[in-house]
Amino acid sequence: MPLLPEHLLAGHDTFMAGRYAQEQSRYRSLAHEGQAPETLMIACCDSRAAPETIFDAAPGELFVIRNVANLVPPYQPDSDFHGTSAAIEFAVVGLGVRNIVILGHGRCGGIKAALAKDDEPLSEADFIGRWMSLVDEPAHGVKTMEHMTAGERQTALERISIRYSVANLRTFPYVAEREGRGELSIYGAWFDISTGELWAMDGETGDFRRPAVDRPPSAGG
Amino acid sequence: MPLLPEHLLAGHDTFMAGRYAQEQSRYRSLAHEGQAPETLMIACCDSRAAPETIFDAAPGELFVIRNVANLVPPYQPDSDFHGTSAAIEFAVVGLGVRNIVILGHGRCGGIKAALAKDDEPLSEADFIGRWMSLVDEPAHGVKTMEHMTAGERQTALERISIRYSVANLRTFPYVAEREGRGELSIYGAWFDISTGELWAMDGETGDFRRPAVDRPPSAGG
Amino acid sequence: MPLLPEHLLAGHDTFMAGRYAQEQSRYRSLAHEGQAPETLMIACCDSRAAPETIFDAAPGELFVIRNVANLVPPYQPDSDFHGTSAAIEFAVVGLGVRNIVILGHGRCGGIKAALAKDDEPLSEADFIGRWMSLVDEPAHGVKTMEHMTAGERQTALERISIRYSVANLRTFPYVAEREGRGELSIYGAWFDISTGELWAMDGETGDFRRPAVDRPPSAGG
Amino acid sequence: MPLLPEHLLAGHDTFMAGRYAQEQSRYRSLAHEGQAPETLMIACCDSRAAPETIFDAAPGELFVIRNVANLVPPYQPDSDFHGTSAAIEFAVVGLGVRNIVILGHGRCGGIKAALAKDDEPLSEADFIGRWMSLVDEPAHGVKTMEHMTAGERQTALERISIRYSVANLRTFPYVAEREGRGELSIYGAWFDISTGELWAMDGETGDFRRPAVDRPPSAGG
Repeated sequence: MPLLPEHLLAGHDTFMAGRYAQEQSRYRSLAHEGQAPETLMIACCDSRAAPETIFDAAPGELFVIRNVANLVPPYQPDSDFHGTSAAIEFAVVGLGVRNIVILGHGRCGGIKAALAKDDEPLSEADFIGRWMSLVDEPAHGVKTMEHMTAGERQTALERISIRYSVANLRTFPYVAEREGRGELSIYGAWFDISTGELWAMDGETGDFRRPAVDRPPSAGG
Repeated sequence: MPLLPEHLLAGHDTFMAGRYAQEQSRYRSLAHEGQAPETLMIACCDSRAAPETIFDAAPGELFVIRNVANLVPPYQPDSDFHGTSAAIEFAVVGLGVRNIVILGHGRCGGIKAALAKDDEPLSEADFIGRWMSLVDEPAHGVKTMEHMTAGERQTALERISIRYSVANLRTFPYVAEREGRGELSIYGAWFDISTGELWAMDGETGDFRRPAVDRPPSAGG
Repeated sequence: MPLLPEHLLAGHDTFMAGRYAQEQSRYRSLAHEGQAPETLMIACCDSRAAPETIFDAAPGELFVIRNVANLVPPYQPDSDFHGTSAAIEFAVVGLGVRNIVILGHGRCGGIKAALAKDDEPLSEADFIGRWMSLVDEPAHGVKTMEHMTAGERQTALERISIRYSVANLRTFPYVAEREGRGELSIYGAWFDISTGELWAMDGETGDFRRPAVDRPPSAGG
Repeated sequence: MPLLPEHLLAGHDTFMAGRYAQEQSRYRSLAHEGQAPETLMIACCDSRAAPETIFDAAPGELFVIRNVANLVPPYQPDSDFHGTSAAIEFAVVGLGVRNIVILGHGRCGGIKAALAKDDEPLSEADFIGRWMSLVDEPAHGVKTMEHMTAGERQTALERISIRYSVANLRTFPYVAEREGRGELSIYGAWFDISTGELWAMDGETGDFRRPAVDRPPSAGG
């Protein structure tokens, strides 16, 4: 068996000749001094929604958690779901990030699974079913919306889920404290895989808007 | 408050004008037909070790889990740590990936935390402490290696941890079955943040080698 | 009292010197030969959503019904709501239009009224309340979606209402017959007042897409 | 089937590049602040008589009802014909318009149908026949005017119908009240499709005059 699949080795060669060569001094500094990312991004595992690509991020810029459906569980010191909580703790308390962005996207397989009725679990252990139960309550409401199309229900739950996760973030004491002191800002965003467009969550209303296109009149232009 | 931090909006503009413009038909296909990534990559949240960058990956290529220290917990249907297990289940059973790569890296903060003696927990809940307890056993052993430098102990545990996670992957019944049938291949890799070099794990011995530089004589070239 | 408000007289002067002067022969032909519009458009009274403006239409192109919330009642020969039915009959049977487009829009006051709870009727007769009762059933469902923002419920009902009206169109025997014979095509569209963008309804799924931006891969480009 | 007929998509592209681009800040304000049109216009569906074109109206200026033959039914809380009544209620009580203009036009198909003798109904339900019965009384009288040409009878009924609708407007209590308090003004107008000329109704005599050409001596200029 090869040490790694050929396409990955080829991709790494391209990286070495291209990006690494251009940013070599940056990589060396980052290795020497340690990472100091300003932003924690919580994104989905989906192969079409990588944060570094979507935001053209440089090394050292984004500390990234990726799980199915970019979920943040509520703060529960003695419950399940520790991996994401551990990474949030590390980013906020250990690294002192200034921003947290929850990045959802269209056509999310996890959200689709949450909306599917009477599906067979993927496995006996049904890890996915239990993970997605984090959004059982809103999923249940959305499923009843028979007047909406399947596509509309999908997008609705993707965005509700982001708002849910933003609220769950605030149940972490150190998140709420730093936000209250103005040291930490929380954002929601939703990426349209087909059009590449980015929608951002209005902190007050929870509505998603496209910064590139849709500004209140006061923003001019 | 702005909808998103300015540098992220600027990064997305760059993406739209650059990569998205070039790969538009690919994004549309992926949206329309769904994702069919061949590889599941389990990587660290570290801002310096993004898989898409390291492997110059295109959209649709890699399904990516990112947690602290790229750990895979053992298969335990009734235990904690469901997030990573759920994503593995989704990738293997739901998407039918052909490869799983566990990608570790140098200067890993999680591994450093596991090796630190008598450190204060980052928070009362100590999520990080409990998460890194997944590698308590090997960490304990490495900590006693007083003849190794701190840097050597760091690299040692990073690589032991990868082998540990590879073994844990095989405790998932559907992983072991597919690997046994030749439908799934498991790899380990370790990225040197400073030099950009990629080390890959020899499946038989567990040693890490650089494919670019270090090949057995029979591989020629 | 002046014969007409000054700004309207001024507007008509501009029309005479501009558009009428350019299209004079067209106006004369249309007067002499009669109108033969190919498209019936059912739009809202809203001052921000005029079809001729949105579609840059020339005289003679669009036969336009405008009522509150661009509603089409179900075919009921002995019931209320005859005005819109009369105009549909005139357009389809009398003029032989080839297309019917139901054009909704964002921030629709009628839809907002349908979603408002416990509002005082505008007048004792409550004509608006009775008119909007045409969408009571879907409005009721949407009102219960507490996990959606007010803005999301608004957009949801605007689009559900368009689908509702498309279905009601098909209850008119002469509409269903002509559509069945391939002589008449029915479309839905939704105009975003803020961005000027046009979303069109997919005839199969009922989802709204932007033709300018979001094409299935087969459309190329 | 395409999402929308090609000529409509092309027309919208022209709108985006032209009018929308020029008036973008106005559209954004109107979306953000809501509509506040000063004028309700009741016009015909006819493809040659669009109010926005005839009066060169900007977005946000005219709240427009369009039905066959620009009719206003008498106020009847328990009768048919709710659509036009609902829109009048919305405009006067909900939006507080200051002007109502009933805009008729030459060669009106609805008026022509009302004058036709012994015509087959367009359909079994005969919605048009019942709608136009709103002007049965004057139509009956005009039909007997055998010394007038068909064209003269047509123009006569078009203008009588406008006066009829103006009177019906005043049967709406909230219209009569606001007019009595000087908060609302009612106008009649008639558009000549062939010449583009606008005729306006003298509030006292009911005669139609062209403001551009025909002013009483005291108006000077």
